[in-house]
Amino acid sequence: VNGGISRERNHIMTTPKGKLLVAQAGGPTAVINQSLAGVVREARRQAPGLRVHGALRGVEGIIAQDLVHLSWVPADHLEQVALTPSAALLSTRDKPAAERCARIFETLKAHDVRWFIYIGGNDSADTLRIISEAARDARYELRCLHVPKTIDNDLVGHDHTPGYGSAARFVALAFAGANLDNRALPGVHLLVVMGRHAGFLTAASALGRVEADDGPHLVYLHERPFDTDRFLADVERCHRQHGRCVVAVSEGIADAQGMLLAKQLGRPVAHCPHGNPQLSGSGALGDMLAALVREKLALPRVRADTLGYLQRSFPGVVSDIDQAEARAVGEFAVRFALAGTLDGSVAIQRTADYAVDYQLLPLDLVAARTRRMPNEFIAADRNDVTGNFVSYARPLLGRGMPRLHRLRAASVKPRPLPIPAQSL
Amino acid sequence: VNGGISRERNHIMTTPKGKLLVAQAGGPTAVINQSLAGVVREARRQAPGLRVHGALRGVEGIIAQDLVHLSWVPADHLEQVALTPSAALLSTRDKPAAERCARIFETLKAHDVRWFIYIGGNDSADTLRIISEAARDARYELRCLHVPKTIDNDLVGHDHTPGYGSAARFVALAFAGANLDNRALPGVHLLVVMGRHAGFLTAASALGRVEADDGPHLVYLHERPFDTDRFLADVERCHRQHGRCVVAVSEGIADAQGMLLAKQLGRPVAHCPHGNPQLSGSGALGDMLAALVREKLALPRVRADTLGYLQRSFPGVVSDIDQAEARAVGEFAVRFALAGTLDGSVAIQRTADYAVDYQLLPLDLVAARTRRMPNEFIAADRNDVTGNFVSYARPLLGRGMPRLHRLRAASVKPRPLPIPAQSL
Repeated sequence: VNGGISRERNHIMTTPKGKLLVAQAGGPTAVINQSLAGVVREARRQAPGLRVHGALRGVEGIIAQDLVHLSWVPADHLEQVALTPSAALLSTRDKPAAERCARIFETLKAHDVRWFIYIGGNDSADTLRIISEAARDARYELRCLHVPKTIDNDLVGHDHTPGYGSAARFVALAFAGANLDNRALPGVHLLVVMGRHAGFLTAASALGRVEADDGPHLVYLHERPFDTDRFLADVERCHRQHGRCVVAVSEGIADAQGMLLAKQLGRPVAHCPHGNPQLSGSGALGDMLAALVREKLALPRVRADTLGYLQRSFPGVVSDIDQAEARAVGEFAVRFALAGTLDGSVAIQRTADYAVDYQLLPLDLVAARTRRMPNEFIAADRNDVTGNFVSYARPLLGRGMPRLHRLRAASVKPRPLPIPAQSL
Repeated sequence: VNGGISRERNHIMTTPKGKLLVAQAGGPTAVINQSLAGVVREARRQAPGLRVHGALRGVEGIIAQDLVHLSWVPADHLEQVALTPSAALLSTRDKPAAERCARIFETLKAHDVRWFIYIGGNDSADTLRIISEAARDARYELRCLHVPKTIDNDLVGHDHTPGYGSAARFVALAFAGANLDNRALPGVHLLVVMGRHAGFLTAASALGRVEADDGPHLVYLHERPFDTDRFLADVERCHRQHGRCVVAVSEGIADAQGMLLAKQLGRPVAHCPHGNPQLSGSGALGDMLAALVREKLALPRVRADTLGYLQRSFPGVVSDIDQAEARAVGEFAVRFALAGTLDGSVAIQRTADYAVDYQLLPLDLVAARTRRMPNEFIAADRNDVTGNFVSYARPLLGRGMPRLHRLRAASVKPRPLPIPAQSL
C-alpha cells in the first residue's frame, strides 16, 4: 500500500477544489508541531492557493466550528511554532460516537473540507476510521489521513512513532542523572515512567547507561507480569552487589492476573473518555513500591520519583531525528491526501541502520490497537531490556547526547594512624 | 574580608610544603564537578608540583582514608568530568561530631594536608567550621575553604550559589512545558519543587512564563504560611478565569504554626543525619493537594507531579553562567587557600546586571544557617513572585533558553449548519 501515488509524481498540482483541515489530538509531544508545520508547508508547496484550516481542540473544535486560517500564517512563525512542544492547535481526549460524527460531517461539508489530516495516536486513528467510513457511507468525497504521534510508541505497523524519540531522550537523560546522583549518595531509587499499555518508554531508561554497573539496574515493563516477591528479591540482590539500586518501572505494570499495580493501592483510579485508566499525575505507585522496599528489605535511603508530564513536553530536550521524522510524516500525509485515493495512517518504516521511508497503512490496522514490546526486546529475566532493544531505540534519541564521565584516579596509599582510644 | 590576599598577586608560587585535599558533600548538582576541576586546575597553575588529593564520600572518605591522586588526572579527563553532573568524588550526608573530627585530623596530619577545600552547602560549611576550630585548637596549620554548592540557593551572605542556576533552568523549563501541555489539555496541574527551607527553586517556576496568562498561575513558597482554604480559593478563581490552573508548590510549605504540610499526611517523615526531614523522593504532598482539589472543588483533570531528584542532576540542562561561576569559586578557593591567611566561604557577589566578583566570608556567617527569600521577591498576595525576583534570577539560567511560541492565526467565520434533529 503506498496510497495509490508514485513517489516520483511530486510535481506542483493545479489548485484543487475544497479545503484541507488539520487537527491535533491526544497527549501532546515535543515534536507534534513539527507535523503541523509539515502539513501546512507541504500543502503550500504541493498546491499553492489551497486553503488550509486548523481545528482547535481536535474534533471538539470541528463540532464547535472553532477553526483558524493556517494558509495565512507566515512561514517563519510556523517554524517558531514547530520548535515549541505541545499541540499548538490544542488537543482533546474526545472520542466522538456516531451522533457526534454526523455533526462533524455537517461542519466538514459546510466548509467544503475534502482532506482531513488528524495528528494523534491509536485512539485518534480510530476516530478517523469512523469519520472515513461515515464519509464513504454518505458518498461525500473526503480523504482521511492519520499522522502518527505518541510518546508510547505503541502503533501497530509503525516501526516507531514521532514523539517517542524525544520522550525517550528525556527518560534516558533522567535515568543517567538519577544514576549519577544515586552513585554519589547511594540508596534505592525507583522511577516510574509513562506508558499505559506498552513498555517502550520505560525501556528507554536503559539508554542512559554508560558503564557496566550503571543504573537502571532493574527495568520492569508492562509486557511482563509484575511479581512483588520477585521484585523484592531483585532489589535485594542488586543492593547487595552494588550497594545501591536504580529501578525503572512502567506505570502500567500489572500482576499475573492482569490487575494493575496502580489499582492495588486501594484508591479508585479515574478513567479518560477512551476508557483508559488515569495512571499519570500521581506519585502513588512509586510511593507504594518504595514503602514495600522499606518495610520488607529495611534498606536505607529508599526514594521514589514519578517522571510524570515532564516526559512529553519538556522544552529543549528534543531528538533531531524525531523532529525531522515528525516533519516528514506531516509532509507525506499531504502528498498521500492530495495525490492519492486511499485513506490511511502514515507510517515510518526503517530501511537501514539508520534510514527510514514512509508508507501508507490502512486505518483498520492502526485504529484502537496497541503494539507491545516484542519478546526480542525483553530480557529473559523479565527485569531488563536486551541489546536488540538498545540497537533499535538508540538512533531515535538523536545526536548531541551529553557525554558522561566518571572520575578515574589512582588511590592514595593509606598511612598508619594512631589507634583511636575508644576502639582499644 | 578578602582572605588576606590582593587579587593582583596571582603569580606562580614556589611549590608549598604539604598537600591540598578536596572533597564534595551534600546533594549533588549539575555543576559541582566544575568546582572540582576549578580547584585541581587552579592548584596546578598557582603551585605546580603541589600534590592534590581527593577524598571519596566527603568526610567519610577522610576517616576511611579513601583518598585518590588528583594531581595525576589528565586535564582533558578533568574537563570531561567537569561536564558530568553529580559529585565525581561521591558525596555524604555525614556530619561528624567532635570525636570523628579528631579522627579526621589524624588522617589530615598523617597525609600532611595543609589545605582542605570542601565543596558543599551550609551543613558542609558547618562541618568545615568545626574542623577549622579543632585545627586552631591543635595548633595544626590548616587552611579550610568552603566552596558553595546548593540548588536551594540558601547560603547566607552569598548573592546566589553554584548549582542553583542549572536547577532553576530545569524548573523553569519543566513549568514552561507543563504550561503548554496544560493549555492543550486543560485541567489543574500541581507541581512540587525541591527546597527544604527556602523557596528560591520553586520561585524559578515563574521564569518559564512567556505570555501574560501562562502558568504557573500560582506559586506557593516556603517563606509564607500555607493556608489550605486560601489555596483552594486561589485555584478556583484561577480555573474560573483561565479554564485551567498550573500551580508551583515548595516541598517545604508549612501552615501558620510552622507544621510542614508534608507531615500532615499522617505518615512518619524520615530524617537525614543533619536532622532535616526527608521531603523529596515521594509524591505524597502533591497527591494530597490534588485529592483536596478534587474533593473540595470538583474540578476535572486534576494532576500532581513531583519534580524530585531530576532537578539536581539532569544532564544537558545546564546554565553556562552557572558552569562558569562553579568553576570560578573552585579557582578562588585555591587562591584564598594558598595565598591567604584566613579560613572562609567563597561567595559570589553581584556587582552589576550581570557581573559578579568573588569574596571570602567567615565560615561562621554561612555555617548551618539558612537564607530565605527576601520579602521583595514575594508578591503581596503570597501566591506569586515579584518582578524583582525575575530580574534577580533570570540571568542565572544562562544563555540559549528555548524560545516558545503560541500559534497566532485568524479565526475562520462559522458557517450555518443544519440544526441537529435531537436538539429540536
